[in-house]
Amino acid sequence: MRIAYQGEPGAYSEAAALKFQEAADVIACASFEAVFAAVESGRATHGILPIENSIGGSIHRNIDLLGEHHLPIVGEVELLVEHCLLALPGARLETLRRVYSHPQGLAQCEQFLRRLSGVEIVATYDTAGSAKLIRDGALADTAAIASARAGEVFGLDVVASGIQDYAANITRFVVIARQDDATLTPDKTTILFALSNEPGALFKALSVFALRDIDLTKLESRPVRGRPWEYMFYADVNIARQDMRCARAVVHLAEFARWVRTLGSYSRAAEDAPPSSEK
Amino acid sequence: MRIAYQGEPGAYSEAAALKFQEAADVIACASFEAVFAAVESGRATHGILPIENSIGGSIHRNIDLLGEHHLPIVGEVELLVEHCLLALPGARLETLRRVYSHPQGLAQCEQFLRRLSGVEIVATYDTAGSAKLIRDGALADTAAIASARAGEVFGLDVVASGIQDYAANITRFVVIARQDDATLTPDKTTILFALSNEPGALFKALSVFALRDIDLTKLESRPVRGRPWEYMFYADVNIARQDMRCARAVVHLAEFARWVRTLGSYSRAAEDAPPSSEK
Repeated sequence: MRIAYQGEPGAYSEAAALKFQEAADVIACASFEAVFAAVESGRATHGILPIENSIGGSIHRNIDLLGEHHLPIVGEVELLVEHCLLALPGARLETLRRVYSHPQGLAQCEQFLRRLSGVEIVATYDTAGSAKLIRDGALADTAAIASARAGEVFGLDVVASGIQDYAANITRFVVIARQDDATLTPDKTTILFALSNEPGALFKALSVFALRDIDLTKLESRPVRGRPWEYMFYADVNIARQDMRCARAVVHLAEFARWVRTLGSYSRAAEDAPPSSEK
Repeated sequence: MRIAYQGEPGAYSEAAALKFQEAADVIACASFEAVFAAVESGRATHGILPIENSIGGSIHRNIDLLGEHHLPIVGEVELLVEHCLLALPGARLETLRRVYSHPQGLAQCEQFLRRLSGVEIVATYDTAGSAKLIRDGALADTAAIASARAGEVFGLDVVASGIQDYAANITRFVVIARQDDATLTPDKTTILFALSNEPGALFKALSVFALRDIDLTKLESRPVRGRPWEYMFYADVNIARQDMRCARAVVHLAEFARWVRTLGSYSRAAEDAPPSSEK
């Protein structure tokens, strides 16, 4: 198994790929688009994409890309995110003038960052990539918010650890492949659909699941480009697509939705979340 | 009327404030948080906040802030977004090496940016602020994606105009104030509510509106911090809060929601959207 992920070595996506398949080879990609391209071209057998974080919410770019491409979801992984503040050896909290991280990383450490005074907060495109910027530029007054593993990879020290605002900071990833894995025994299905912009449309859509006692665990709306205030929906239901109740719900949905597409059916991530208490 | 907005002069938020009240004084703020603070302190009578873009989707930070603060929504504005590529006088498309803009501005001009080769795309915290950075730093090889008005304010030329991927690029803003405006004759209401993480919860929530023929025009979910995979919902309905059907729907919702809060009742923005065709 060769799994493509977005980011530098030490990225949370790399850790998620290895949690999905410990023995996998991992392929670093510069962007989420490049992850899709790696799977489409066959350079990777699988791709891993963050889809939602328990603090920051959905990663909308990946929901949009899943809709634009035609690669099935074949699995999911949940990963506990433990952010560290990383800096060149010898740096101290008091001498830092800048903090780099991905906007989600910055948002997840808001309370910690607010306590640092006189420090500029700079958004970058990657957590582990921020650590690489500091190493490459020998930036002595700059720190990155990233994983402890990114610190190891780029030779940075951990100045502070566990700096996320909430202990229960979990990112959920989906695994994409070129085709469905027939050996799977799925218990979860992701469905995309678009609705006409008319009263009660979403209520009717949810009824096709509720009337069949199908548990909807996620619903996210994304704008339909070029059609103001019309939406595409990304829905997760806790049932296999092969289950007759799911098949009937999708047929029912197709009666009035503009279009419906089943994105994949796969096994739910094991729940190994820590206690959900605030720190 | 003194309206606080986030951004530099020339920001789309400033244009939205003046569309809401042509004769208003406008107050530039460094962040969305500062807009809330300006209204809470009385320095501004109103604040204006982008809440949703027809291409990029919701501005989640403002949905979260509306939930954290206790300022009512008293109005909304829709603004057509016309992005321009701005640079110092004399700059040409061929000599540009960097493009600055807010991530939403970059996302809205994706196709245009893809056609520029060898150009670094840099995310900043503001569209008009990107124009200011170029003026302040005399950055001859850098362009900003912002409004034509931002170009006038910061002495930059328009290198290309109307560069957004979709002609119908509309941002919807909400107007906040310290208290409800009793003179309003509202026809729209925004409601926040949180649901227990149990099967059918969202279906039941939508039924309180659907069963009363109340048109739901927006529904957005946001994670509840510290409680993985639990959500708060932001809902817009096309009815005044004083209408008995709305009042009954909210009471019904409160029977099973964790909590419900009416965020404000106000007049819908006039629809002056251009044709929704792609360019």
